[in-house]
Amino acid sequence: MNTRAVGTGFVRLDAVMADDYSVVNSARVSFAQQSSDLHNDLSGKDKGLISFLMRERHGTPFEHNAFRFHVKCPVFVAREWFRHRIGSYNEFSARYSEVPNEFFVPDESTIRTQVGKPGAYTFEPVDDDLATSAVEMISATNTKAYEIYSCLIDLGVAKEVARMVLPVSMYTQFYWTVNARSLMNFLSLRTDVNAQYEIREFANAVEIFFQEQMPVTWSAWVECGKVCP
Amino acid sequence: MNTRAVGTGFVRLDAVMADDYSVVNSARVSFAQQSSDLHNDLSGKDKGLISFLMRERHGTPFEHNAFRFHVKCPVFVAREWFRHRIGSYNEFSARYSEVPNEFFVPDESTIRTQVGKPGAYTFEPVDDDLATSAVEMISATNTKAYEIYSCLIDLGVAKEVARMVLPVSMYTQFYWTVNARSLMNFLSLRTDVNAQYEIREFANAVEIFFQEQMPVTWSAWVECGKVCP
Amino acid sequence: MNTRAVGTGFVRLDAVMADDYSVVNSARVSFAQQSSDLHNDLSGKDKGLISFLMRERHGTPFEHNAFRFHVKCPVFVAREWFRHRIGSYNEFSARYSEVPNEFFVPDESTIRTQVGKPGAYTFEPVDDDLATSAVEMISATNTKAYEIYSCLIDLGVAKEVARMVLPVSMYTQFYWTVNARSLMNFLSLRTDVNAQYEIREFANAVEIFFQEQMPVTWSAWVECGKVCP
Amino acid sequence: MNTRAVGTGFVRLDAVMADDYSVVNSARVSFAQQSSDLHNDLSGKDKGLISFLMRERHGTPFEHNAFRFHVKCPVFVAREWFRHRIGSYNEFSARYSEVPNEFFVPDESTIRTQVGKPGAYTFEPVDDDLATSAVEMISATNTKAYEIYSCLIDLGVAKEVARMVLPVSMYTQFYWTVNARSLMNFLSLRTDVNAQYEIREFANAVEIFFQEQMPVTWSAWVECGKVCP
Repeated sequence: MNTRAVGTGFVRLDAVMADDYSVVNSARVSFAQQSSDLHNDLSGKDKGLISFLMRERHGTPFEHNAFRFHVKCPVFVAREWFRHRIGSYNEFSARYSEVPNEFFVPDESTIRTQVGKPGAYTFEPVDDDLATSAVEMISATNTKAYEIYSCLIDLGVAKEVARMVLPVSMYTQFYWTVNARSLMNFLSLRTDVNAQYEIREFANAVEIFFQEQMPVTWSAWVECGKVCP
Repeated sequence: MNTRAVGTGFVRLDAVMADDYSVVNSARVSFAQQSSDLHNDLSGKDKGLISFLMRERHGTPFEHNAFRFHVKCPVFVAREWFRHRIGSYNEFSARYSEVPNEFFVPDESTIRTQVGKPGAYTFEPVDDDLATSAVEMISATNTKAYEIYSCLIDLGVAKEVARMVLPVSMYTQFYWTVNARSLMNFLSLRTDVNAQYEIREFANAVEIFFQEQMPVTWSAWVECGKVCP
Repeated sequence: MNTRAVGTGFVRLDAVMADDYSVVNSARVSFAQQSSDLHNDLSGKDKGLISFLMRERHGTPFEHNAFRFHVKCPVFVAREWFRHRIGSYNEFSARYSEVPNEFFVPDESTIRTQVGKPGAYTFEPVDDDLATSAVEMISATNTKAYEIYSCLIDLGVAKEVARMVLPVSMYTQFYWTVNARSLMNFLSLRTDVNAQYEIREFANAVEIFFQEQMPVTWSAWVECGKVCP
Repeated sequence: MNTRAVGTGFVRLDAVMADDYSVVNSARVSFAQQSSDLHNDLSGKDKGLISFLMRERHGTPFEHNAFRFHVKCPVFVAREWFRHRIGSYNEFSARYSEVPNEFFVPDESTIRTQVGKPGAYTFEPVDDDLATSAVEMISATNTKAYEIYSCLIDLGVAKEVARMVLPVSMYTQFYWTVNARSLMNFLSLRTDVNAQYEIREFANAVEIFFQEQMPVTWSAWVECGKVCP
């Protein structure tokens, strides 16, 4: 299964060149050695090496691989995503194409209030009435903004100008190619309890793909508290 | 003058470590030489070296410097800006702070229509009535979105949820630290006639700071057609 | 064939995630489109898009791929190679392992003399006697240095200290993982007539792998004068 | 004092744009705030913020600064140095210039033997006779190699060919421009007890410059066990 839905968005693994052997082999080039058989299971020694590298934060052996993802997510999530500079991006352009009528609307169960101070926020659910109202207000704002956008487009205003009215809840799409080291950095920050709930959902989907492709590396990373090497 | 207004936004040069000598000296380390007097004007030979490096696309000597900018611009401009990965960013967080009621509204004279196909767009002005209507529609949408945002905040909804309704015309602020090589890449792309008008205005302001700090480098870059080395 | 000999060294393509479709598809995400069938030949339109991207220097679509190379080359070549920062490296360690008795010795036909000034060097062959002498002198120096190295090791001196005596002609090995955009930058500089002959030989081997995996991209790049996008 | 000798090499701080305020201010842009007076001492609150950022590994506020170093060190040290990719380098070229007769020779007191296994090496001093012999052997090899090099140059062999015989103990020079975040990563790894002694000496010199320019950041980093944020 290469596509995981995240609400009305998704994370799709478009291509991959990744396995735990590449970690072992690239580390062993330090000793001019490599695993003799790439197609068998990793030995206990191999697994121990991966744990050692993770624990001691020898990061480079985790870079000799690549994951190419195709992601559909709201702009406010993409804005956080693109802050991760070690990786490659190509994104939908609202200058070249008309933005489709697709907006993120949070589930009522996720409407929350913020408690505490910067650096130490916690979030608590709100009562049902407020949750319902909030979702309606967000949804109505999206609808209204898209009406104005469509109207501006119909009147002949350039797409790049008309899109100024669209909220950051609009969906965007992009390709993201990244190696496991940078991916672990992304996951450390974006699956963390302090990350915004909505990007955490996407990061969790990304993590499953990582776990599937590089299970030994993923385990070692989890054992080290998800710190990035 | 360290701050240049760009509409209701700005570009401010917060700190700088840059001069044309650093280009010459870092290039001359190849020959274990350096200019004898850092405080005099560059010699003709120095200027010739900078032109040579630019023309032959020896890029690294242009990296030994740093510009720290403080920028206030709309989110749709910042989104393009942050695609430039070789540089450092810290941005206002709509998770931590309440977004101020500040939105970009285009001048009527800049409302335009789009002609041609992707890769070959041109833009033409629209008639006055449409320009007036478009500005009113954009402005009204901003106002309405901010009302909803404020209402959600007042009701106790978390800032990071409430901000979903805000349009990409909202202003943001960030620090950007970058070297001249990466800056020239940014300027090549973002002062180009194919760049969106609104980011071009910011890029033009950035370019003036670059020209002031590294005039010989800037001249050589212009003579080479603003190609990045 | 995954390994190409370069003198007594080699370039081996260890793994790859690369094809011309990835360029087309990542570019088309700008328009929320993608090629319908990934397994057929590229259409003429696809090829035209790749040429357009190359010519207009839209570089990011060329980043959604990865080549993992295993290289054995002399240290003086590796020193130039590692200057290319956008990519991942793991190298043999002369601190952890004993350096094998393997040194680069140039062919007599490649012994050359240098004519002209920095930035405008040309090289011309030397007469046969000098070529023979030079090769003998280089070879003898390698042999002598390795004797001293072995002696120091035998006396119990740490590997990391003993290796100080070894010349930059010693062979090293490394893994290098890189995307096509960075690869084209490497090839632009290192297959160029101004690059040192010995790294050019390695770069030529790398280029063949690139051409095999991404033939349409390679053609477009050659047509654009091997400029990097 | 801008130059610190390291044996017969040096680390020179050529230019700098760095202070602790830049950390505080770039972090506070998240809240659209900044310190009111850049020229006074940091407040206790400012210091607390820097500690918080370091501890929680918010790395980006430590990037808005730049250090430009001029370094003279042996090639085997430079080889490790250049593995640090986030930073800018320009190095002496043995293709363009004749290599001067300057080689690193270890002090007798630093001649050591290696005990243990990869990942867990320790080093112990050797007895005086061996130390004396080792230094003599290294020194003699340097001298001999340089004689061959000079002879090849005199015979008309190209510099880039002749230099193949030179050992990795030869001195090189380079400019290195780097921000504090990348610098802390360098220092974490290269001042560590597991780093090779010779690069540790250079890293220690670099660290003093860092401490002088950003004392509060340096303290916070030391308190966090020199982990890089």
